[in-house]
Parts: sequence; C-alpha cells; structure tokens
Amino acid sequence: MRVVALGGIGEVGRNMTVFEYDGRMLIVDCGVLFPEDDQPGVDLILPDFRAIEDRIDEVEGLVLTHGHEDHIGAVPFLLRLRPDLPIYGSRFTNALLAAKTREHRQRPKLIEVREGERRRVGAFDLEFFAVNHSIPDALAVAIRTPAGVVLHTGDIKLDQLPLDGRLTDLAGFSRLGDEGVDLFCVDSTNAEVPGFVTPERDIGPVLDDVIRRVGQRVIVACFASHVHRVQQVLAAAQRHGRRVAFVGRSMVRNMGIAAELGLLEVPEGLLVDMDQASTLPESKVLFVSTGSQGEPLSALSRMARGEHRQISIRAGDTVVLASSMIPGNETAVFGVVNGLTRLGANVVHQGNAKVHVSGHASAGELLYLYNAVRPSNVMPVHGEWKHLRANGELAVRTGVSPENVVIAEDGVVVDLVDGKASRTGRVEVGHVYVDGLSVGDVGESTLSDRLVLGEGGFIAITVVVDSSTGRAVSSPTISGRGFSDDPKALDSVVPLVEMELARTESEGITDTHRIAQAVRRVVGRWVADTYRRRPMIVPTVIPV
Amino acid sequence: MRVVALGGIGEVGRNMTVFEYDGRMLIVDCGVLFPEDDQPGVDLILPDFRAIEDRIDEVEGLVLTHGHEDHIGAVPFLLRLRPDLPIYGSRFTNALLAAKTREHRQRPKLIEVREGERRRVGAFDLEFFAVNHSIPDALAVAIRTPAGVVLHTGDIKLDQLPLDGRLTDLAGFSRLGDEGVDLFCVDSTNAEVPGFVTPERDIGPVLDDVIRRVGQRVIVACFASHVHRVQQVLAAAQRHGRRVAFVGRSMVRNMGIAAELGLLEVPEGLLVDMDQASTLPESKVLFVSTGSQGEPLSALSRMARGEHRQISIRAGDTVVLASSMIPGNETAVFGVVNGLTRLGANVVHQGNAKVHVSGHASAGELLYLYNAVRPSNVMPVHGEWKHLRANGELAVRTGVSPENVVIAEDGVVVDLVDGKASRTGRVEVGHVYVDGLSVGDVGESTLSDRLVLGEGGFIAITVVVDSSTGRAVSSPTISGRGFSDDPKALDSVVPLVEMELARTESEGITDTHRIAQAVRRVVGRWVADTYRRRPMIVPTVIPV
Repeated sequence: MRVVALGGIGEVGRNMTVFEYDGRMLIVDCGVLFPEDDQPGVDLILPDFRAIEDRIDEVEGLVLTHGHEDHIGAVPFLLRLRPDLPIYGSRFTNALLAAKTREHRQRPKLIEVREGERRRVGAFDLEFFAVNHSIPDALAVAIRTPAGVVLHTGDIKLDQLPLDGRLTDLAGFSRLGDEGVDLFCVDSTNAEVPGFVTPERDIGPVLDDVIRRVGQRVIVACFASHVHRVQQVLAAAQRHGRRVAFVGRSMVRNMGIAAELGLLEVPEGLLVDMDQASTLPESKVLFVSTGSQGEPLSALSRMARGEHRQISIRAGDTVVLASSMIPGNETAVFGVVNGLTRLGANVVHQGNAKVHVSGHASAGELLYLYNAVRPSNVMPVHGEWKHLRANGELAVRTGVSPENVVIAEDGVVVDLVDGKASRTGRVEVGHVYVDGLSVGDVGESTLSDRLVLGEGGFIAITVVVDSSTGRAVSSPTISGRGFSDDPKALDSVVPLVEMELARTESEGITDTHRIAQAVRRVVGRWVADTYRRRPMIVPTVIPV
Repeated sequence: MRVVALGGIGEVGRNMTVFEYDGRMLIVDCGVLFPEDDQPGVDLILPDFRAIEDRIDEVEGLVLTHGHEDHIGAVPFLLRLRPDLPIYGSRFTNALLAAKTREHRQRPKLIEVREGERRRVGAFDLEFFAVNHSIPDALAVAIRTPAGVVLHTGDIKLDQLPLDGRLTDLAGFSRLGDEGVDLFCVDSTNAEVPGFVTPERDIGPVLDDVIRRVGQRVIVACFASHVHRVQQVLAAAQRHGRRVAFVGRSMVRNMGIAAELGLLEVPEGLLVDMDQASTLPESKVLFVSTGSQGEPLSALSRMARGEHRQISIRAGDTVVLASSMIPGNETAVFGVVNGLTRLGANVVHQGNAKVHVSGHASAGELLYLYNAVRPSNVMPVHGEWKHLRANGELAVRTGVSPENVVIAEDGVVVDLVDGKASRTGRVEVGHVYVDGLSVGDVGESTLSDRLVLGEGGFIAITVVVDSSTGRAVSSPTISGRGFSDDPKALDSVVPLVEMELARTESEGITDTHRIAQAVRRVVGRWVADTYRRRPMIVPTVIPV
C-alpha cells in the first residue's frame, strides 16, 4: 500500500491524503488552505492534484472525515476533474458539501455513511468510527487492504462529556488495534499542548455567567460550523430571556442545516431575524455572529469600526469571542477587540474567560489513542513540522519504535511493505492558488511581483521613439503609483532619463528592448540613491 | 498643566508624551512604532511632531525613561527640528542613544541622570526613580510644577529579586504619594494579565537545564538589549564549559556597550568571535543571536532556511527562543520554529519551557503601584485600548474614582486644573512614515495604492494617439505585472481596447485624459467579468 499526502502535512490546511493499493486509489479529505502574508491577493490554496489527475479514473472514491473547509473546501475543484467521483461522508458533512457544490453549480454523487458502518469501496474495505471534534458528525476511517490496515483519525479529540453524547469510539479503536493497525495517521494539531482539552460542556456555565450580568446587547461570535458552541449560546440566551438572531451568511446557512438535521435544537420561538431583533429591547436580544477571526468584511469587524448598518456598539454592550485565534489572525482579531473596546464594549475572549476549547486532542488524549490502537507504524498528519515532530515523540513514548514513525511532508511517498512503512520517494507538490475565478494562473512569479509592488509600488516610464533612428519623439512620461504622496517626487529623474535617451540615440540604438533596459537602469539607480527604496521600474518604449 | 501624548496611547510603540506648563514644554520619550500589514513597505512610524514643531524652542528638554526603540528610536528625527535639544537619560540609555545618533551623524546634547536625583529643567522640577524592566538602567520620572505633580512610570515591572539588585523604588513612590501625586501615567502593557511576572532570575536554572543536556550546538536568541537575559546565558554557558559568540550586529554592539559600562559581567576568556567559534567542537560553543522575532534577514531566520554561511543546523542542535512573541510576529516566528524543526533542531521556546518573562508589570504589580502612589488622577499609557481600559479598571479597584481615570488616545489634550485631570481637546496626530531615506512623503494615498498593487498587481495600457484627430497611431501596448503567470492572460482584452479607441476617435475625442478614462473603464469591466479580480488599471495616453 502506498500513501501520499497532497496537502496537510507540514502545514495546517488543505488536507488531502491518497491511499493506493493494486493500482486503485482512495482519497481521504480534500480541503483548502488559507493564504498567508507572502501570498497576497490569493483567495484559497488547493492541494496539488497533478499526481493524480492523469489517473483520476482509478480513484474509487473520496472519503470526507468532517465538514470543515480545510477538509472539504477543495472538493468542487476536484470534481472539475471528475464530476461523478463517489463521495462518502456523514449526514452533516454531506449537507455542508451539498450547499457548497450548489454554489459551484455541481451535483456530486454523495453517499451517506455513519459510525459503525463497514463498506467496501472498490479495492478498499472501509470502516467508520465516531470521533468528536468542533463540528458534529465527524468520522475516523479505517482502510483495510490485503497489504495492511490503516486508521486515519481525521480531526479528533476525546471529549469525555460531549454535548451530544457521541463519544470518540475508543473501544472501536482498541478492537481494531487487537486486529492490528499497520499504519496510524494521527491529527497533530495540538500535540505540543500538554494535558487534556476541557470538555465543551464546561463553556456553558461561563457563557451563562457572562450573559446574566449584561443589561444591554450581547453579541457572541464563533465559527459558523460550531453547532455545539451555538447550542450552548442558545441555551444561555433562553435562560436569560433573550431572543437570538444569527448574523452572517454562513452562520444562518449552517445553523439552518444543523437544525433541519436535528443536530441543533432550537427552542420554539427563540429565533428572530435581524429586523425583528432591532425592534426588541437591548436586554432581550442576543446576536450570534461570524467574524471571530477578525475577517475585515464580517459583521463583527464592521461593528468594531462603527460601520455596521443595524448594530452600533456603545458602552455597556458585551461581545464574546467564543473562538480560538488561528495563527496569523492575531493582528486582525486584536484590531477588532480594540475597536470594540474603544466604543465602550466589554469584550470577553479566551484570554480572559474560558469561552473556547480546542477541537483537537492535546498530548494527554493522543497518548490514549496510541495506547488503544497500538500501531506498528505512525504517520503524524495535520500540522506544521513542530506539531508533527511532537506527535511522533508521543507515539515513541507509548512504545512505537522511532524508526516506525514516518514524518512525511506533502508529496512524500510512503510505502507500507511487509508491515513496515517507509519513505520511498516524492511526487511534485506545489501551491495551487485560486484568485477570483481562475485556478493556477497566479503562480510564484505573480506573487513575487505583488510582493515587490506591495512594498514599494512602481515607477512607469513611457517613451515613444522613432523606430528608424531611436530618437525620442516626445519627452518621456514618468509616473509612480504606491511610491510617494509627493507629486514632485519624480521630477528630478526626468532630465536623467532624457540624457540617457540622448545617449542611446547617439549610439544608434533603435532596439526598444535595449532602450527600455537603459532607462530601467538609470531610474533604478536614481531611486536607490535618492530614496533608498526599491519600487518596480516599468519602462515602456513604443516605436512609431 | 497640560498633557498630550503624540504617540503610544491606543497603540504599542512610538511613546512620546508632552507636558506643558506656563508655555514651557517637557517631553518624555520619543520612540518609533513598527508597521503592520496594512502599512506595507514602511520602515518605521514616528510620533507626529506637528503639534510641537512650531514651538520646538519652548521645549526645555527630553527625558528618556530607557533605551528601547519604542522610547528612543525617533530621537534622531526630533533632533532634525532642534539639534541642541537637551536630552536627559541614564548612563545605559544615553550610551544606546549615542550609538544610534552616531549612525545619523548627530551629536546630541546628552545629560546623564540617575535614580534618586532631583534636577530642575526650566519650569519643571524632575525627580528620577529606579524601575526595573527588560533593559538595565530604566527610570521613572516625577515632574513637579506649581500646577501639580505628575509621576510617569515609563515601562516598569516590580521584580522583587532583580538580577542586578536594582529594585523598582516603591518606597520612593510611596514618599511621593505622601506628598500627593496629581496625575499618574502608568504602563498598561500587561494590565490584562492577572497576577505577577516571574522573576527574571528564575530563567537561569531553566536555561542551565536545557544547555546541560545538549551534546551539540546551542543557539539562544533573545532581544539585543536584554542584558540580564544574556547575563544568565553567559553564566549557564560557563558552567557547562561552552565559549560564547554573539551573532547579529545589534547584539554585538549592545553587549559591548553593556560590558563597557559594567552592566554585563563577562568572565575572562568566555567570548569568542564567529571565526574562533567555528574552530571549536560543537559541544564547546554557544551562540547568542538576534532574530527572536522571526525577522527574515536575521541570522536565526537564515539558519532556519538553511542559508546561514557559518551555521548549518542539523539533528541534535538546540535553539532556545528566550523571548516573547510581539503580536503580529507570530507567523514569522512560527515559520522560523518550523524551519529549524524541519532541519532536526530541538526548539525550546516560551510555549514549552519558562525561558522568557515579560518586562511589564502584570495586574498584581500594578495594584502595588496604585496603592503606593495613591494618585488623584490616573492616565494609562503604553497600550492599545484593551490594555488602557484594563489598567483604568485596576486603578478604580484601588480606590481611584472612575471620573478621575482619563483614557486619552494619541492627540487628546488632558488638562490638570485644580487637581482634576480632564480631556479638553484634541490636536491632530497622524502616522508619520519613514520609508528608506525620506520621512513623510509616503502617506495614506501611497499606502492604499500599495495595498491594491500588492493584492492584485496592475494592468498597464499604453496608447499613442495623434493629438489632432485622437486616432491611435499604433496598436495599444497592454501588459500586466503581479496579475498572472499566464503570458496570454490579457490577450482577449486587446480587441476591446481597440474597439474603444475606434469609438473615441469616431466621436472626435482628442483629450488624452478622456481617452484614458474610457480605456480604464473597458479594461476594468473586462477584468472584473473575466477574472473577478481588481488589479490597478493604469492607462497612459501619449499624444504625438
């Protein structure tokens, strides 16, 4: 059996792992990664499908462990390669995917599976296990082939008091361990964090306590797929006589789906829409909103800037960020907290109250998993290098031999042969960027230009020359954008460019490319000496 | 007495507060702020001097509380307004400033002051108090005028076991409190953090324990001005038979100054330079390096990328980040940690070992300060809104009346009249950007262009037209930068531009500005429809 991650190892996001046996493939998850600062203008980053696109018909199916974007977000793009790919997921996962593919005008072939179920998918014998996470209805998957048994956790934690009573199936993992697990792919996100994640249930009393004391508006922001978090907010609101309005498109949509599937219990008459909410006294309403990551266009960010159409924050309002802070979003989140504080709101967040718990197993829980499964080989997944390595060390502490821990980043080929997993090669895996409507045309060269332009702007020099003599037929047009607010900033380079053009003409240079190079050199040197800056220099020489 | 902060309130950085009495002014601190993501290409942000520049001769002096960049970094720019401004600072502060101003070819008038000293500076009667912080020789300053007594903490904490035995002078603050403090300006950085900062001294045994167990190279990164941290690293290195090399220009420079002033004790023969270090066995050397904030050009970042000329990280090396993570630097720091981990290094940081303590008083310590000083009025300084508000609440809990807590952001004018401080107005305070050699020519318009260019690049269209008929004399030149890697990406817009030029010609339009507008509209609409992107559209119409 062969295992290749096309995303999700060495990074947090775009999870996608390909399992291959006897020429047939099975894919687990197909998510997106959100861009960082050095990927400006990019909307999403996809797993790199090149390693499978020529063999897409050999894929037996796609298993989705749960409905988060970093596990399902790239499915519409995979479906472009093969619209009839069979997709296996739980009820909630499939419902979220169906909503997403509708926006892409796709109708994928969705097959519902559930915990405890065993199902043959071509060459692969699958078994699904209940796991808990920060979204309902998450699954782990065991993949049995004649070459061995793999267990993939997906995202997992071991909340022992889950709100919906649906425990991670540790007993099932033990039974599978008795049978023998050859390769265990384990969520690494929190492997560096010692101890255990507090039960989700313990947030309820904290929320209750916060809401009880507020005489004005309460706004709670959290992830739009965190049904159990929202469930506890609804309960607290009801106890304190507040009606609830959902704010933000994805919150409204996802909670609608969750309620329809019976995963979110909504007490009769509790929900109101924004128009009704605005007619209620401030002490009788609670808003559940998106925007907990400081997304600039979200409702919460607009409130923090005082730009929200319906909700003007004032002294005495309380905003609860019942959410984590995804690394890289700190500045944005702090910006929202400061904006709200400046307007007088009391902001409650995980830094000053226990209003968030993680969805990923900490080190203590991972030890339970290793001891239940007793795997022969371990491959940490879902994480950056520091997480993978910490996770591997936990495996070793439970008795897995260090040489059976495979730290494999995206694209590394891992072969399981005679019960031993090892790295045997590498397929090419790059970043595939989605920018607006198109996929892949924005690459590293465009991004590096954007970084230069974003840092220093550009100076454009346009020269019209006589194509036979190379003589400039008018004075050069020189302008900058993103360079200076001073309209005279470029004045003193004009004579230098004119001198250079006189020189190229006197040397009989008529080649527009050579003239452009000469102009670029003069302007580049001038700007470095005068300003010590490095804008992009863009010469255009037009022959007439 | 009038108080106006020109920086440092509502933000973390560029601290500068102006005190005015009877037409004479005293400035406390003059630091820089480091730019955020929405200020691309900017090197530094200065306090806005406009409120004082016309009255610079009425300034009696500048008091520097300590030598960190956010307190002294803008001094060279203030000196451009008045080179002979008297500057009062402690020995170490003045030495760091002298090194800085030498780079600017300035020779400021530095006057050394020390704790316990009382000194008249024009209309102001100053008294200096020892405080401890993450740099030696920090001072608080009391300013007595006939209109009242102000106490400004600068950056402060209350380490009760300081490495150099120099305690924050709580007794002095109490004595001043007996006399009566009318306005207390207090460091807010850690006001949200409950409890007390662990003594700096407690890091020593942790470092010792880490270094003891390593058989290969050890690299410790920390702030280049954190003399006491480095002192403890030197002690641990010596105990384990390692020589020490300083890496990074500012580390070498600052530790040289500290050693010269007797603030850093360097055991005979302990230090080696990089060349000597490379000849020693790996178990006999320790590097103390800059780069703890993930700065991309630092030695540590180069090691993490495998690009450092002298130090190639390999499995078994240990890197200690004995530093905080300044908000906004998380992604960069995690990038360095992952890079080092990927190369096999063991990375020790504040997340997995007690190798850093803050330099700023937590809530518990701030309560000690309020109870010692018993101020009539409080003005929280040094912090974002959330910090200021948390600090104000601490003051109230010690008995300060809420209406005597003044939360004043940059530019707010606070007047102390008859023992009551209140907000009475506002002076204009903007961001003053330093980009390369020039100050102030990069403003909000340039930054907003940079943000657009950085997100989407640009499309330039150059057209040469006959100035009398408006007819295009050659086909338009269309090119993009930061737009697409696909060389054909813009092909399909060319005929649209040609059609538009035919239309403007047929309507007899010869005005180049109107032609440019028409071209911009066509290309903008096309790119939005085709790509759903928003590059900058840059038309240039040249009449011949």
